[in-house]
Amino acid sequence: MTQNSLKPYNQAYGDSQLAIAELTLLLGEKLVVSPSVRNQHGGGEVTYHQSLAPDAVAFASSTSQVSEIVKICAKYVVPIIAYGAGSSLEGQVSAINGGICVDLSEMNQVIKLNTADLDVIVGPGLTRQELNIYLRDCGLFFPIDPGAEATLAGMAATRASGTNAVRYGTMRDNVINMTVVMPNGDIIKTGGRAKKSAAGYDLARLLIGSEGTLGIITELTLKLYGIPEKILSAVCSFDSIKQACEAVILTIQSGIPVARIELLDEVQVSACNTYSKLSLAVRPTLFVEFHGSENHCAEQVDMFKDIAAEYGSHDFKAAAKTEQRNILWKARHDAYWAGCGLAPGMAHLSTDVCVPISNFADCVTQTKQDIIDNDLIGPIVGHAGDGNFHVLLSFDENSDREYKKITDFLDRLAQRALHFEGTCTGEHGIGIGKAKYMFAEHGLGLNYMFLIKKAIDPNNIMNPGKIFYG
Amino acid sequence: MTQNSLKPYNQAYGDSQLAIAELTLLLGEKLVVSPSVRNQHGGGEVTYHQSLAPDAVAFASSTSQVSEIVKICAKYVVPIIAYGAGSSLEGQVSAINGGICVDLSEMNQVIKLNTADLDVIVGPGLTRQELNIYLRDCGLFFPIDPGAEATLAGMAATRASGTNAVRYGTMRDNVINMTVVMPNGDIIKTGGRAKKSAAGYDLARLLIGSEGTLGIITELTLKLYGIPEKILSAVCSFDSIKQACEAVILTIQSGIPVARIELLDEVQVSACNTYSKLSLAVRPTLFVEFHGSENHCAEQVDMFKDIAAEYGSHDFKAAAKTEQRNILWKARHDAYWAGCGLAPGMAHLSTDVCVPISNFADCVTQTKQDIIDNDLIGPIVGHAGDGNFHVLLSFDENSDREYKKITDFLDRLAQRALHFEGTCTGEHGIGIGKAKYMFAEHGLGLNYMFLIKKAIDPNNIMNPGKIFYG
Repeated sequence: MTQNSLKPYNQAYGDSQLAIAELTLLLGEKLVVSPSVRNQHGGGEVTYHQSLAPDAVAFASSTSQVSEIVKICAKYVVPIIAYGAGSSLEGQVSAINGGICVDLSEMNQVIKLNTADLDVIVGPGLTRQELNIYLRDCGLFFPIDPGAEATLAGMAATRASGTNAVRYGTMRDNVINMTVVMPNGDIIKTGGRAKKSAAGYDLARLLIGSEGTLGIITELTLKLYGIPEKILSAVCSFDSIKQACEAVILTIQSGIPVARIELLDEVQVSACNTYSKLSLAVRPTLFVEFHGSENHCAEQVDMFKDIAAEYGSHDFKAAAKTEQRNILWKARHDAYWAGCGLAPGMAHLSTDVCVPISNFADCVTQTKQDIIDNDLIGPIVGHAGDGNFHVLLSFDENSDREYKKITDFLDRLAQRALHFEGTCTGEHGIGIGKAKYMFAEHGLGLNYMFLIKKAIDPNNIMNPGKIFYG
Repeated sequence: MTQNSLKPYNQAYGDSQLAIAELTLLLGEKLVVSPSVRNQHGGGEVTYHQSLAPDAVAFASSTSQVSEIVKICAKYVVPIIAYGAGSSLEGQVSAINGGICVDLSEMNQVIKLNTADLDVIVGPGLTRQELNIYLRDCGLFFPIDPGAEATLAGMAATRASGTNAVRYGTMRDNVINMTVVMPNGDIIKTGGRAKKSAAGYDLARLLIGSEGTLGIITELTLKLYGIPEKILSAVCSFDSIKQACEAVILTIQSGIPVARIELLDEVQVSACNTYSKLSLAVRPTLFVEFHGSENHCAEQVDMFKDIAAEYGSHDFKAAAKTEQRNILWKARHDAYWAGCGLAPGMAHLSTDVCVPISNFADCVTQTKQDIIDNDLIGPIVGHAGDGNFHVLLSFDENSDREYKKITDFLDRLAQRALHFEGTCTGEHGIGIGKAKYMFAEHGLGLNYMFLIKKAIDPNNIMNPGKIFYG
């Protein structure tokens, strides 16, 4: 079997100018065709993929309006690309076939907070930070924290996660219900507000991670959590990646409910020291966070400290004070900028893979060797409890030779993750960047994804060219 | 829009005798046509739905053999019904169009245990109890516990859960990967062994809960958990359902990670007293279980005790000893038999709905009133932390009048759950019993489920007549 068994779509797209004329009647000045706004909407923030501008940007204000927009695009067979904050990393918003970008950032309301049920209904354009600011006063929070100030619908569309996923899961686990506009303009709800259901196919889970290729998310009901009574952090370093990873495995096996357990390799630690003015020992390092009651947090720290010591940890420090904790996690969240600082003036890209944690040490170690062997700049930081890690690569974007060196490395990294029974992406998604790995990862399963795509979006107007290759 | 917009399949099925002849060549004596075996495979254990026997039962021994069986059935356009333990409750295994039952119970191996990753690969026919017996010596367990001795693939197919779901989630959350035989015999894997992935559509979540209508699960990789250092139980009663439910809501809001929190109404408590020789006060009662370290468990019990007291709890008892705990949970697990004991000689059926926990008290209270108003026998037991509850109805199956009284009650119960923003089933699934509620629950969303079904199974050979109505 080859990629060709996917039987790609054969239709041509219609004239987007016809759609634009009709959309202008609907939206007035909220349909924008100025080159600057279009260009702004064509590419992710931190991506090395080609940024291609849509033919127009529609700033939507309601679910029914998104439905009207989609119906017009469907009528003229014009591509539709949903847009939140533009923070995706694999070219998810690039308008590779032109078409209309539907910007949902103005639909950023908190629609209804249900404190008794620990859920909240929000608009698609609300960002996770905005939601958490809103929630602060009622003692609740939403835990999923990808690096960027992403929108919640964008996070659902890419099945995002982040540092808290080891304890709280990913977007897959934290969306209760969504309202979605389908490719013909139908408005569906994927479920009710019950915490669980066994009533038919799980449309929510199908749409989460579909990257706008099946429909546009226009409302989300999200799970919330009580802000823990106590939050404690700890940091310690190890002589090797292997030892740090062994400590992580035993921590997870022991059932310590760590909220975060992040690995930084020595290159990343050194970069953070410089960027965030820390003085951490330049060794593989774990940043850990514990949530719970005062006593339970203290107990978790003690248990973790013992485990870390078993694997020869150095410089164990627990940070009880909010201020100390914030310094640590600010440094972790600035890891990207710290990594960029290793190669000022160059282009940067962040990639991710995810493997079973028993293979995490080997996969990271081989990847580090690959970086050294090929003379690359690539600090590594990972959500170790999930087996998920990032490499931040810096390169000269004007050099074809460097570009090839980088893409060859990315190919080897994806293959390595699959060799270790993992996935080519744990949280960044496929976009255009990783479509070429989909067959290697899914084999015949990819055909079934494509069958679903064709059944739901027969004219391939929803974010065409993403996830599926060729 | 009516149900008819689903555009039902129009094809007729082929002659199952042709498939049986070819399957006999493949399987020899493992293809069984004896009436007793066929009848045994036509109906769930505890179901009031019509039990219809398949034309033959194929006892499968491997994924590749299941693929061969499916290819033969596909060739002759003959229905295929996957069968595990036959413990489903909504007629999921009834051969309403005849065809071949594929019995997977002999594929009950533990294929590979990965202790470092806390996962295990198993055959589809292994039961949850068999898995936990296997795991006991290595200190791990699999938490999902529907009442029956169900097979793990059957549990995935119906998106089962149980008493532990409030802490550990449902099958949706605890399946990492599956091998599935698709309607044309294709063998696919839904993913790797990584704990998370953002690589394309979530085929695993689509297949979980699809009740055999999209493919046959032939292998599962499941998440495991360390057996907690300490397990504590508590029991207490309340003056009203409302007060018990308020205690549950505050417990969940407070972030107490209860492993189980089960509500029994006073009818169920009385039945349990008789059946299990307990002497609980005959009032709405909570059975609660806490998992964690010694200290953390004690702390949870104290916190819960305070919360319960706020809502006027009576007779608070914590059970520290394994023996006391087992008496309590044995009584909870025997609630079904205890309920049957209220009406010996009659037929029984267990139904379930699930609502947001803020609506749980109202939904249960209205349902109890409905039971009283209609002179029904119906103890209620619920997974209160999830807003999920069961009613066990007893009735004379030879009386049309009683049957109508029961089905009218079930209709009102489903509507009530939807009115309270819930679902017509939290864990039993749709089968044939609840297909009639699917449009009310999902509206246009149902069309998209059906589009997926038709794309993947164009000849409707996979468990036809289930989930989709008419």
